[in-house]
Amino acid sequence: MTNNTHGSLAIGIDVGGTNTKYGIVDQQGNILSQSEMKTEAFETPELFVDGLYAMLKPMMDSSPAGSQIKGIGIGAPNGNPFRGTIEYAPNLRWKGVIRLCDIMSKKFNLASVINNDAKAAAIGEMTYGAARGMKDFIMITLGTGVGSGIVINGNVVYGHDGFAGELGHSTIRPGGRKHWGTGMHGSLECYASATGIAITANEMLDENPEIESLMRQYSREEINSKIVTECALKGDELANNVYQYTGQILGEALANFIMFSSPEAIFLFGGVIKAGDLILKPTKENMEKNLLPIFQNKVKLIFSELKEADAAILGASALVWEIGKNTSIVAG
Amino acid sequence: MTNNTHGSLAIGIDVGGTNTKYGIVDQQGNILSQSEMKTEAFETPELFVDGLYAMLKPMMDSSPAGSQIKGIGIGAPNGNPFRGTIEYAPNLRWKGVIRLCDIMSKKFNLASVINNDAKAAAIGEMTYGAARGMKDFIMITLGTGVGSGIVINGNVVYGHDGFAGELGHSTIRPGGRKHWGTGMHGSLECYASATGIAITANEMLDENPEIESLMRQYSREEINSKIVTECALKGDELANNVYQYTGQILGEALANFIMFSSPEAIFLFGGVIKAGDLILKPTKENMEKNLLPIFQNKVKLIFSELKEADAAILGASALVWEIGKNTSIVAG
Repeated sequence: MTNNTHGSLAIGIDVGGTNTKYGIVDQQGNILSQSEMKTEAFETPELFVDGLYAMLKPMMDSSPAGSQIKGIGIGAPNGNPFRGTIEYAPNLRWKGVIRLCDIMSKKFNLASVINNDAKAAAIGEMTYGAARGMKDFIMITLGTGVGSGIVINGNVVYGHDGFAGELGHSTIRPGGRKHWGTGMHGSLECYASATGIAITANEMLDENPEIESLMRQYSREEINSKIVTECALKGDELANNVYQYTGQILGEALANFIMFSSPEAIFLFGGVIKAGDLILKPTKENMEKNLLPIFQNKVKLIFSELKEADAAILGASALVWEIGKNTSIVAG
Repeated sequence: MTNNTHGSLAIGIDVGGTNTKYGIVDQQGNILSQSEMKTEAFETPELFVDGLYAMLKPMMDSSPAGSQIKGIGIGAPNGNPFRGTIEYAPNLRWKGVIRLCDIMSKKFNLASVINNDAKAAAIGEMTYGAARGMKDFIMITLGTGVGSGIVINGNVVYGHDGFAGELGHSTIRPGGRKHWGTGMHGSLECYASATGIAITANEMLDENPEIESLMRQYSREEINSKIVTECALKGDELANNVYQYTGQILGEALANFIMFSSPEAIFLFGGVIKAGDLILKPTKENMEKNLLPIFQNKVKLIFSELKEADAAILGASALVWEIGKNTSIVAG
């Protein structure tokens, strides 16, 4: 809570499979109030919106005198900015096509826009974070999966159908590891997501039975990227190798992305970046090694400036300031 | 030569390592007059421009009454649209940075713009060809090398430094074939260029000594993509395998590009497309196979509509109609 005077405010809502975070944000990226609730507690999208309204109404009523709420920005898995919908999101209990912007705008009597989480993160970084003033950058989210938001010439890239920016599914190891969800082989997400890192750790433990490792204290199901990081920081050789390998593949993929759109910077975001230099160093090294000389030592590879705890709400709220600028539909 | 009445005209000049083609083009893409001269005959860029002027002046003087030449568009290897220069082009006898737009504009007293050949081809297709009205597409040129011009939201993608769109150098076979020029391993150009196709043919002949092939009538140095095509069309098994393999790799690469920018179409252009369905079919098949379902059966994969003989001049001339629209510098 800050005491600045505020003009326009935005509501930011991040819809996750388990929790939904929501808050009120000013144009400088200060979160004036925020909270969260269980997404899965609501049987229908209408009940979900009723729940949100009940929680947000008091926050809206207590927003600073003279301020005005401009609209609602929603970040959601499979959020479709062109249609104002969530479509066939595998991790939500509401199936099919959900016209969330319509429902939201009717209930709140405010304009609302939606986007997928990775594109919202990119817009958040451009609005409040280290990408301010940048016209060309790529946001890579390294969480359970690998998402991306691409900005070219100051605009998020949507492509002809709104689906651009699925860099996590580009093939980086033809014929390689099979993806647990898509069934495709060798995509970036197979290796550089938290899920992929756990698989790599298990593979390395299997393939090197003679090498001692702190990771062997855990059951195979338990091992996750957090445990790999802890072990690596204690000097564990195999755990370090897991990040070397992950960074090699991620670095090669980033080099390909750079030769496509020549961005000023690539931002990394999400749970995996808690590994810090363990992931950043090998990624940077392999990125540079796989670039044509004209691209080398020019592209910044940096962690997002937005705090992970706040980023979801900030990214979603930033969509509101984009209204009228991009091609999203606006309900309300 | 057509007899329509013409308003604005553009001069298009395509500077190649061996020949320079030039002509006068109207806004509908009719080439009113054209010719070519040896690039390498001119010791300096100034003498080259003097030569061009001597050849183009009579064409300009005989352009239709009432028409006006709006400017000069130049397509050239390593053409830098931001600086109006050709920079360190390995295949030209003029070394270093050539301020070609300045020299040209002074001599002709006309505005001039430059771009690299693949971006000029993309703009040509968008102006006169099958990409008219498309806002999102990718042009892939398959010649001695592999070039690309990417259009997103109606604009050519330059990136933060003007170098975007080097898709020929993206890695598609990590640790694969070494590139003859860059020394990098497994780039698309190593396989899908005419050069790469000749290498693949030689490799397949070496690796399958027991298989009869019409290609064995030629010396190893002689074999090129044209010969591979001729043999494949006669039903030669190995020659057909060469295109199957080329199409597999090209298709996988195109799938990655689609998941980046979700274009409406991908255009193929250049000498290699003379192979027709031999290259198109396996490319299309492998492209679809490597796409997420949301992208499948949506993206047109088609050959450029511009005749190869005319395309270089058309692409260069189209740059003139872009003046004031993109970020190119304009000399003169």
